[in-house]
Amino acid sequence: MENWESYVRKVVPYVPGEQPKQEGMIKLNTNENPYPPAPGVARALAEMDAEKLRLYPEPDCGMLVDAIAEYYGIESSEVFVGVGSDDVLAMIFLTFFNSPKPILFPDITYSFYDVWADMQRIPYETRALDDDFCIRKEDYYGENGGVIFPNPNAPTGLLLGLSEVEDIVAHNRDVVVVVDEAYIDFGGVSALPLIRKYDNLLVVQTFSKSRSLAGMRVGFAMGNPKLIGYINDVKYSFNSYTMSRAALLLGTEAIRDRKYFEETKAKIIETREWTKRELQRLGFVFGDSKSNFIFASHGERPAREIFEALREKNIYVRYFNKKRIDNHLRISIGTQAEMETLIRCLAEYLNR
Amino acid sequence: MENWESYVRKVVPYVPGEQPKQEGMIKLNTNENPYPPAPGVARALAEMDAEKLRLYPEPDCGMLVDAIAEYYGIESSEVFVGVGSDDVLAMIFLTFFNSPKPILFPDITYSFYDVWADMQRIPYETRALDDDFCIRKEDYYGENGGVIFPNPNAPTGLLLGLSEVEDIVAHNRDVVVVVDEAYIDFGGVSALPLIRKYDNLLVVQTFSKSRSLAGMRVGFAMGNPKLIGYINDVKYSFNSYTMSRAALLLGTEAIRDRKYFEETKAKIIETREWTKRELQRLGFVFGDSKSNFIFASHGERPAREIFEALREKNIYVRYFNKKRIDNHLRISIGTQAEMETLIRCLAEYLNR
Repeated sequence: MENWESYVRKVVPYVPGEQPKQEGMIKLNTNENPYPPAPGVARALAEMDAEKLRLYPEPDCGMLVDAIAEYYGIESSEVFVGVGSDDVLAMIFLTFFNSPKPILFPDITYSFYDVWADMQRIPYETRALDDDFCIRKEDYYGENGGVIFPNPNAPTGLLLGLSEVEDIVAHNRDVVVVVDEAYIDFGGVSALPLIRKYDNLLVVQTFSKSRSLAGMRVGFAMGNPKLIGYINDVKYSFNSYTMSRAALLLGTEAIRDRKYFEETKAKIIETREWTKRELQRLGFVFGDSKSNFIFASHGERPAREIFEALREKNIYVRYFNKKRIDNHLRISIGTQAEMETLIRCLAEYLNR
Repeated sequence: MENWESYVRKVVPYVPGEQPKQEGMIKLNTNENPYPPAPGVARALAEMDAEKLRLYPEPDCGMLVDAIAEYYGIESSEVFVGVGSDDVLAMIFLTFFNSPKPILFPDITYSFYDVWADMQRIPYETRALDDDFCIRKEDYYGENGGVIFPNPNAPTGLLLGLSEVEDIVAHNRDVVVVVDEAYIDFGGVSALPLIRKYDNLLVVQTFSKSRSLAGMRVGFAMGNPKLIGYINDVKYSFNSYTMSRAALLLGTEAIRDRKYFEETKAKIIETREWTKRELQRLGFVFGDSKSNFIFASHGERPAREIFEALREKNIYVRYFNKKRIDNHLRISIGTQAEMETLIRCLAEYLNR
């Protein structure tokens, strides 16, 4: 080992879900939206002036921040944007989780939380989901350095009601509570209205799922202007120009189209409910997902075997080789046609 | 103050150069390239498929990494890409500058180094440039936690010769040395050939200046595969998908066109040398810039007054209200026509 290696920050890196690129595959493994972004995105892309790319973007991301604020009926000073919600969350960890007390999050949850905590040397403790994979709000009432959880939770898809979310926020007025709402648009109730009541609450959302824009990297946080100001200070001290001209422009178009958003969302929810009925018929067991995926196990066949069988048929779902959930599959909701193919393949494989 | 505020990371944020948007202005304040990106960028933009934006980009940025490696005749495992060189440098600070000993950089230099160090709580010491604003290599020979300097330096534009850069790297084999070559293409000699000889050397470059792509946010580091691997581990633990599909695609097109790159570079250098002669004629004093800007003071008139007079005429240059350099202006090299307008305005203002 070279001497310089002794001062390297050594981490166990997050392993992103595989991004296979097989011809004709059905990709249900990273919770992408099966529908293209709003038509305005294609239009804006076609009209984009390549020459302007020689110039820096606006560091304050004004156009996009204003569009998000307008969409949600809040002030621009209540919105922070970043390079996907991962960037937003990384900045939030850096900004607010500096207490010597541990931050709290569920034992089964978005697999990046412990990675950020380890990387940033933030102490943390996990709280076990109950036997039905539900978050118990009381588990988050003790002294801590901050609280973060997804709602709906990942990879379970299960939703915590707004009053329970509020209880967690209200019991933690001394720390910052982050509600990670990556999947909220698929049937949940956002905690957004609570940001005016609780100055310690941040609500984080993303354009990668319900806005069909995973490829452009856009995420955002909403909270009171003081919280947003602190994140912006850290962001400006890390990278002043995170959002490209393309991300600002296309993100703005993506959020403006409320009608298209409602339509695609409704289609995904409808397909999800259809898929639930079919999976149940095939002997799968799962909670009541309010997200764009279903987290299911099968009564008879091991998840890993089903995962591999589907892969053989060029259908990609997600399998986690992890305690408590190593007999589950996370299946993203694709188009109705894709889910019909999935169900047909599963029926064949299971001889049903 | 709320209790949660006691654990906020409080920073003095970097203040990016202003991005004015006056009609008809001449923008010489943030070292952007006056020429559009390579024609292939506009073509790729026009052909980009908006529908694909629903999918995540490749987390390993393979296409762009490969294109950079091919351009420089190195291996893909020797290349790391990020959201502008600021993102690359922030990741490098996080990854390698974890020694209790101070990192070293010049007192007059890129104004982000101390911001990153403060934000990440990295101890640092600055080394004063000599009276001619040159880096003295011997100042970086002592024990330290790492070394970073731009070459050419910013905002002076002055170049350190390759043998002097090598001396600094060779005297610091126990730490990582970062040569920040944002402006190297405008007349400097890159330290790139040294990465095979020194496993502690990272060379950082950007698409924002010589590649006319500031608006897309693309930067990169080159070094031996072990160094690059460590940065990638940290990057994957921070944000797995930093580079959008658009950044990967357009960045790839921007670096492939060697001919266009050579042409625009030559034009900028020619205009810079013309501007130097004219500025000298008008009584300005400056070192021999090898970058796309000139850092000049005037024998008789205070820099701030000239800065304000130019602003009145809708010409924006950069003024730093900072010790040792508060009587200097940093003037980016625009098109020949823009620089002729600048010189005409200055001549008028100075009555020459």
